[in-house]
Amino acid sequence: MVVKKRVEMIDLPKYLCWIKSDCAVMWHSCPRVKVTASFTADPAPAFNSVTAFAPATVANLGPGFDFLGCAVADASLSLGDTVTATLDPTLPPGTVAIASVTSPSRPSLADRLSRDPLRNCAGVAAIAALRALGVQSHAVSIHLTKGLPLGSGLGSSAASAAAAAKAVDALFGSRLPRDDLVLAGLESEKAVSGFHADNIAPAILGGFVLVRSYDPFHLIPLSSPPALRLHFVLVTPDFEAPTSKMRAALPKQVAVQQHVRNSSQAAALVAAVLQGDAGVIGSAMSSDGIVEPTRAPLIPGMAAVKAAALEAGALGCTISGAGPTAVAVIEGEEKGEEVGRRMVEAFANAGKLKATATVAQLDRVGARVISTSSLE
Amino acid sequence: MVVKKRVEMIDLPKYLCWIKSDCAVMWHSCPRVKVTASFTADPAPAFNSVTAFAPATVANLGPGFDFLGCAVADASLSLGDTVTATLDPTLPPGTVAIASVTSPSRPSLADRLSRDPLRNCAGVAAIAALRALGVQSHAVSIHLTKGLPLGSGLGSSAASAAAAAKAVDALFGSRLPRDDLVLAGLESEKAVSGFHADNIAPAILGGFVLVRSYDPFHLIPLSSPPALRLHFVLVTPDFEAPTSKMRAALPKQVAVQQHVRNSSQAAALVAAVLQGDAGVIGSAMSSDGIVEPTRAPLIPGMAAVKAAALEAGALGCTISGAGPTAVAVIEGEEKGEEVGRRMVEAFANAGKLKATATVAQLDRVGARVISTSSLE
Repeated sequence: MVVKKRVEMIDLPKYLCWIKSDCAVMWHSCPRVKVTASFTADPAPAFNSVTAFAPATVANLGPGFDFLGCAVADASLSLGDTVTATLDPTLPPGTVAIASVTSPSRPSLADRLSRDPLRNCAGVAAIAALRALGVQSHAVSIHLTKGLPLGSGLGSSAASAAAAAKAVDALFGSRLPRDDLVLAGLESEKAVSGFHADNIAPAILGGFVLVRSYDPFHLIPLSSPPALRLHFVLVTPDFEAPTSKMRAALPKQVAVQQHVRNSSQAAALVAAVLQGDAGVIGSAMSSDGIVEPTRAPLIPGMAAVKAAALEAGALGCTISGAGPTAVAVIEGEEKGEEVGRRMVEAFANAGKLKATATVAQLDRVGARVISTSSLE
Repeated sequence: MVVKKRVEMIDLPKYLCWIKSDCAVMWHSCPRVKVTASFTADPAPAFNSVTAFAPATVANLGPGFDFLGCAVADASLSLGDTVTATLDPTLPPGTVAIASVTSPSRPSLADRLSRDPLRNCAGVAAIAALRALGVQSHAVSIHLTKGLPLGSGLGSSAASAAAAAKAVDALFGSRLPRDDLVLAGLESEKAVSGFHADNIAPAILGGFVLVRSYDPFHLIPLSSPPALRLHFVLVTPDFEAPTSKMRAALPKQVAVQQHVRNSSQAAALVAAVLQGDAGVIGSAMSSDGIVEPTRAPLIPGMAAVKAAALEAGALGCTISGAGPTAVAVIEGEEKGEEVGRRMVEAFANAGKLKATATVAQLDRVGARVISTSSLE
């Protein structure tokens, strides 16, 4: 039984409160946020185990700083994270454990991630999802497989959180409404990269998502026409750009004229996504006059990389999330290899950085279940 | 014969230069603007006289400050201006004269408008259109009928300019591309209310228009689904709010968080227009945290008027353009009368201002020819 109820204000200690009653609350410790919570009465599991994948995401998209993002994936689903959530009768009911973390393409990465579920993106999201579902009689083990590098600007933490929330929800019969799934992931994002849903929302919903507001929590999925063949060239240099440092570089104040210019470009980007105009998507993405100018100088070679992408025929280029990945937009994938090669060259020549390029397409699906194993 | 040519930079004295060659240039004195000009070889007239109507417009729409606007009209087309352009063999070829200005509903208004075509909105736009068309062998007399009050925030000057540009263009066979018509009107707007196309673009194109950028000049018409029954309650108090004073009230700087909040609401407004979501259109329009808070206190009673509109069931309310008109959005027109009555009451009680309410609908047509008279 699911009862919807509007929770006006909830004040609970972070992560550590576990409500022992006949319902569980999905809460949010930011006091400004009013959460529409799902109360459920300890649902029965639907599977023994569920594996879910969540894609990489490109947040900001230039002038959409902090409120626009989109999901991207390659055909082999290597550009994202995978979580297997399994019922675990050896654990105390209502708890989550991280059973394993692996990273086949970057073995050292796995060692950097905590096995403490309260300090692991997938763990926090799994706990939040379990709580939102009201699960009390079962416990869940999490196996996390990282496909994404850390701190690259491709929504690595959001992909882990989205895959975990999706897997746990599916394990108990896919009961959570869309926004509650995103809020479960946001619980995790908040601990890692701040209170921003521009990665986690597209990681869960797929496509482009506009995070309109947090109070009330309002996401607007922006569906683009099927004919739009949007591809992204993602070029990640071997360079650490911590989100906190990138945030510190932001201007505190913006001239009102610049505000108007950036807003109109963000609005044009949204219109172009909905109308399927790849050219305007690209040029609007390239037009940020507020955030990119302060962050690009912190990523060696970024200006040259952007210039190289545009010269090679990309429709637009900017920093993906807080960087250091550079993202270029193309229509169709034909030009992808050449654009990527030129961007990698520019990182090498202008930034003295080794970089790798991946051509991905707009991922319209978001977090999805890729396999299940039945209850015995 | 029409030859399209890209004019990179044109520097001519304002209004006073008339190119005596085999082509005419539609230029713009703002040096930042690159105009795509139409060169025509002295086109023959298609009519003896053309009468065109252009609707009132609501600019800004809250968070869309300086880049969003929409056209509004009532069934009787009283909410707009009308211009008759007539071939006049008594004038020197290539010139424009203002033959008459009338304002049936506000007789004193007509006396406040100049008959000097270089100092009259309709005159300047007519000259700009004539020049863009390359007309050399004919002259035009303009009869302007004002349906809109001055300085009310309903795009009065833009309506005159749009009707004049449309009438002159139609007089010579409707040769001007959409953007050139808007630029002819913008020439006029620039002289009156500054270099902003958020009234003139919807006055000419109809519907919602996003003015993305001026360099290059890029308009994005935002077509909303036909099922969207958007109505506007326009309440104009008996109060002069000069655009210049309203502009001076703007903040010079905006906190970056506020910039993000306003941008995401503007983006949501654009998405809602394209997706046909009246509720989001209204609430996004109501959400401006930058311009409305500085301007509303300059219009006595505005805060109470907004509160009254929302309480009476409006989906949203803000200042129309630079004011003093308050604009509320409703879906369907049923509630229009009640919302208008409550807003008028609030202006009387809280602002000690007499006000009049009009219920209009989204005008999807823009400037249009309403009658013609044939050549003899």
